[in-house]
Amino acid sequence: MPGSHPGSDPAVTPGVTPGALPRYAFLGPAGTFTEAALRQVVSPDDAEYLPQVDVVSALEAVRIGTADYAVVPIENSVEGGVTATLDTLATGDSLVVLGEALVQVEFVLAGRAGTRLDHVERVSTHPHAWAQCRRWFNANLPAAVHVPATSTAAAAALLARTPAAADPGFDAVLVAPLSAERYGLEVLARHVADNESAVTRFVVVGRPGDLPAPTGADKTSLVVHLASNDAGALLEMLEQFAARGVNLSRIESRPIGDLLGRYSFSIDAEGHIAEERVAEALMGLHRACPYVRFLGSYPRADRAVTEVRPGTADLDFAAARDWVEAQRRRPE
Amino acid sequence: MPGSHPGSDPAVTPGVTPGALPRYAFLGPAGTFTEAALRQVVSPDDAEYLPQVDVVSALEAVRIGTADYAVVPIENSVEGGVTATLDTLATGDSLVVLGEALVQVEFVLAGRAGTRLDHVERVSTHPHAWAQCRRWFNANLPAAVHVPATSTAAAAALLARTPAAADPGFDAVLVAPLSAERYGLEVLARHVADNESAVTRFVVVGRPGDLPAPTGADKTSLVVHLASNDAGALLEMLEQFAARGVNLSRIESRPIGDLLGRYSFSIDAEGHIAEERVAEALMGLHRACPYVRFLGSYPRADRAVTEVRPGTADLDFAAARDWVEAQRRRPE
Amino acid sequence: MPGSHPGSDPAVTPGVTPGALPRYAFLGPAGTFTEAALRQVVSPDDAEYLPQVDVVSALEAVRIGTADYAVVPIENSVEGGVTATLDTLATGDSLVVLGEALVQVEFVLAGRAGTRLDHVERVSTHPHAWAQCRRWFNANLPAAVHVPATSTAAAAALLARTPAAADPGFDAVLVAPLSAERYGLEVLARHVADNESAVTRFVVVGRPGDLPAPTGADKTSLVVHLASNDAGALLEMLEQFAARGVNLSRIESRPIGDLLGRYSFSIDAEGHIAEERVAEALMGLHRACPYVRFLGSYPRADRAVTEVRPGTADLDFAAARDWVEAQRRRPE
Amino acid sequence: MPGSHPGSDPAVTPGVTPGALPRYAFLGPAGTFTEAALRQVVSPDDAEYLPQVDVVSALEAVRIGTADYAVVPIENSVEGGVTATLDTLATGDSLVVLGEALVQVEFVLAGRAGTRLDHVERVSTHPHAWAQCRRWFNANLPAAVHVPATSTAAAAALLARTPAAADPGFDAVLVAPLSAERYGLEVLARHVADNESAVTRFVVVGRPGDLPAPTGADKTSLVVHLASNDAGALLEMLEQFAARGVNLSRIESRPIGDLLGRYSFSIDAEGHIAEERVAEALMGLHRACPYVRFLGSYPRADRAVTEVRPGTADLDFAAARDWVEAQRRRPE
Repeated sequence: MPGSHPGSDPAVTPGVTPGALPRYAFLGPAGTFTEAALRQVVSPDDAEYLPQVDVVSALEAVRIGTADYAVVPIENSVEGGVTATLDTLATGDSLVVLGEALVQVEFVLAGRAGTRLDHVERVSTHPHAWAQCRRWFNANLPAAVHVPATSTAAAAALLARTPAAADPGFDAVLVAPLSAERYGLEVLARHVADNESAVTRFVVVGRPGDLPAPTGADKTSLVVHLASNDAGALLEMLEQFAARGVNLSRIESRPIGDLLGRYSFSIDAEGHIAEERVAEALMGLHRACPYVRFLGSYPRADRAVTEVRPGTADLDFAAARDWVEAQRRRPE
Repeated sequence: MPGSHPGSDPAVTPGVTPGALPRYAFLGPAGTFTEAALRQVVSPDDAEYLPQVDVVSALEAVRIGTADYAVVPIENSVEGGVTATLDTLATGDSLVVLGEALVQVEFVLAGRAGTRLDHVERVSTHPHAWAQCRRWFNANLPAAVHVPATSTAAAAALLARTPAAADPGFDAVLVAPLSAERYGLEVLARHVADNESAVTRFVVVGRPGDLPAPTGADKTSLVVHLASNDAGALLEMLEQFAARGVNLSRIESRPIGDLLGRYSFSIDAEGHIAEERVAEALMGLHRACPYVRFLGSYPRADRAVTEVRPGTADLDFAAARDWVEAQRRRPE
Repeated sequence: MPGSHPGSDPAVTPGVTPGALPRYAFLGPAGTFTEAALRQVVSPDDAEYLPQVDVVSALEAVRIGTADYAVVPIENSVEGGVTATLDTLATGDSLVVLGEALVQVEFVLAGRAGTRLDHVERVSTHPHAWAQCRRWFNANLPAAVHVPATSTAAAAALLARTPAAADPGFDAVLVAPLSAERYGLEVLARHVADNESAVTRFVVVGRPGDLPAPTGADKTSLVVHLASNDAGALLEMLEQFAARGVNLSRIESRPIGDLLGRYSFSIDAEGHIAEERVAEALMGLHRACPYVRFLGSYPRADRAVTEVRPGTADLDFAAARDWVEAQRRRPE
Repeated sequence: MPGSHPGSDPAVTPGVTPGALPRYAFLGPAGTFTEAALRQVVSPDDAEYLPQVDVVSALEAVRIGTADYAVVPIENSVEGGVTATLDTLATGDSLVVLGEALVQVEFVLAGRAGTRLDHVERVSTHPHAWAQCRRWFNANLPAAVHVPATSTAAAAALLARTPAAADPGFDAVLVAPLSAERYGLEVLARHVADNESAVTRFVVVGRPGDLPAPTGADKTSLVVHLASNDAGALLEMLEQFAARGVNLSRIESRPIGDLLGRYSFSIDAEGHIAEERVAEALMGLHRACPYVRFLGSYPRADRAVTEVRPGTADLDFAAARDWVEAQRRRPE
């Protein structure tokens, strides 16, 4: 992704001072899983990294212009924030997703040099990290108690900066391997996550105007409101996709909040708005639904090529349009 | 319809010799219900009427150029011919429907002057006419027998030209009121049709190139093949209409004939191909179905204005397209 | 079919006098294509054949009890009558279809012994038969004219009974091979039908109460009304079939006639009402549509085994019902 | 709800020792929003309250039998846990939802007696609570920093039990009004939540066997897997609801995790499994989808009566079944 990402070419990116490095806000501090995702997107040599206290702050930094891009977790995150990301993107000034990155959820238990695993009684980490390692602790350190921290990296940072003689309030931290390494901690146990195959998905967010070119392996993210929770209303919305052969890779309903019974859907569709079938489906949504927000078309992190069903390629749309035009034409 | 019909302005109609009257083939002879329909379309003062022996001949006359237009029954006809019309339009060189006309199905029993109703024993008419008056004969002339004729008007013509002293082979004819009048016959009984509210629908057919302008009260006729008789295949086809808010006023399946289990659908959709929602639905059919034939967009005879559902007017399509274009646009 | 048909076992058929042969009304006279269909259904040795003047008479004979069964054409007929059959079944006292038969559409040109083909100028036959052989006559006897008859067999019968010295009004007849044979006519030309692969479908009709057992290769015929011509209303109706994996082999819309914009659909679905997926689809139609008439479940003439999609076999329905019951159950 | 809830009648509830109070596990400690929800469900006089450290522990307590019921947040929670609740219910031994409760999200800033609002610099609370009051702090105490706690109530408890002379590590807590009251803290500011109309939804969970009686205002919760992310597969699943007129009040897709491209849907449908339209929709899902888990039918907390569309009441199902049975019946 680094090569194709608009952020890697600041000369053509709106809002980026020529000559300056592009500024990336992210869920900090240094050492978080989000930083691992950011490193996939752009090297620290080619960008200015701006850690933020939470997801909303990172996205707001782009809106107000103190950052050019933000990298935030959006799905299945161990740092929290999915809901915050989705809701912040769904309302307020428009932002668009420019790319995504996947980071494997991997935890280590780490402590100061010399810490013995069987002496660990108090473990500091973010509550979501704690939740994802419960089975390991039940089996291996059943007496351990949780000392919450604002992020996994924050716990590591606090441990690192506390004088050796002082008690930081806990004996070990539950963190990403990168965090342990970065803060010079000793790894006491590896592979402590209950589900080693879990990954967190992060998105790169920018201001509208940046639209990555289609790659054939893209996603389009949307927010769509329905007028009612009638099963027929949902079916009609989905038929806008089905009638053009567009598959969905994610759909989530969320109450709109202002009125009982009105729903907002957060949707990832397969394909790029530059493709005819996606464009026509979006047109259909725009006509049929009270509200549609386009959150961007961008390359998939897994590079899975979009399956194009027969009759739904751009050529098919062009041929169909030509055919209709030929029928419409009247002689001079 | 006469004023707006392309046939009424031969100067701009392709295939029509300037200065000459447009030539209309129709299911003859003079006095048929089809002639009554033709009179609604164009006055005999403004056109050359060319009676044909059957529906196929009338349509072929347009194909080979011996007529400019054809008027033929297409639905619920008393003269037969629905299947012949549909099948002849569905295959062979392209023809398009330019308009339609409705004629009320009204029959009279007529004979030579002085014929007594209670003496009528043999009644000549087309079999379809006989079928539509069975209940009346059962109730009023139960002993009457049917003497078939090639058309209702042909029976009237034969009676009129048979010398008074000779026996034409029947005592009375079952015909349209116009036929009785035209052939100088005496009406023995009126309102003999079992269903007085029935109407027959006729279509005006021409060569491609003539496309009537949209009026807001139009129909679009199509032939669509499906690849299978899977209920899902039919649903997918109908969703191409539903996703654009296009209603159907008629749908009929017909076996294609070449392969078991393949079906052809004859469809009338509400609206005109010049309207965006109809055009996009046709594009969808063109992409999704193995075969689509456009049989024309033309004003409805009943002038019922098309109900345009919210979000499906041309303005809605234009707004949706503009919105998608705005999302797609990348800055220079 | 003869062995399995209820008509072949009069002892257990309601309305059939024990000891007497079952009575079959059919579109006569002897020698019609309908008689050929009837012979497929039941041998003349095992049934009383009752020729009728038209389709409506044949069906009414069953309604009033003067016949036990009727055999009438229903689709693609050369004798006319599809519409009459469909409409007569769709309204009035209930009748049910008990079986079907296919007869190949095959015509011969026949005359009295010694007739020379190149002397044939006037050809008597039913108008539909004439229509189906037009191309042959155009190519081989372009000067021949049509003399209409009430049925193909009637023309043959008239020719046979006219004294040799008298002129029946025509030189030859266009009839089924069986007709020529039965009336002792000489075949002047064979294979004169324009489409040699066409078949006509006939149905065996009886009073409700006779329901053929499922064979795995069955059809279910229905009449369904929709409340509106909204594309959504048609989709909802079809989804009642699709949600249970039931395919349709025929669907035709017909205006109801009493109110503009209300439609009746004539439908053949694959499967038998004794099968769960068909029964549940019919329940869905009964709930969702203003009117549903069941016209019978009966073996297909082509014996094509119904394709049962995964999850729609009777066992799947039983398993699903058991599962729901298990979830519903409360402990004592 | 207390009167109708099975938990209120331990004599008939399986797994509940006669004479003993029913045991309710909940997300503790005392004073959480979850306890507020639990109090709506059953009075502490009629039940044993068993606080748990997290959602998974509360649900597991029911599975292993150390509690009879669990009350846990499921949607929009300020305590976290939605994902944990959904995922724990979706896999492992079956649990069913027996009821739900809504608690308004209301926060106060509280401290020891005498604390001055403008002296508050460090605020302890659960991260989700902090996230929901960001705008208030930005506007009123922009310099305040967050000190994370395992729950809002835990922060209050820690403040309450820390000797007055000692520093608990923060100056104030952000908690539910009940927490402030329970721990004897002084309210420094009220209405500090950014969205005062937000509510959290909690569910009462038990072992299968308890199925609340239908009330006419019920929900049914399900987990459904699809075989693919084809838009058609999702449409087919939703048509199982639409074909029976069942509306959905919530639908969320979640990756299944074992295989890329397979999705699990968490669904709340309107109505009760004891109602025919819901039961038939569940049967349809059971037949059409690779996996369905029934998570219970229970009264809605908002008591909104289910809108029953025409043709989908139990009487309509019974009438449809009777009609189909009448068509199926053969005479003896």
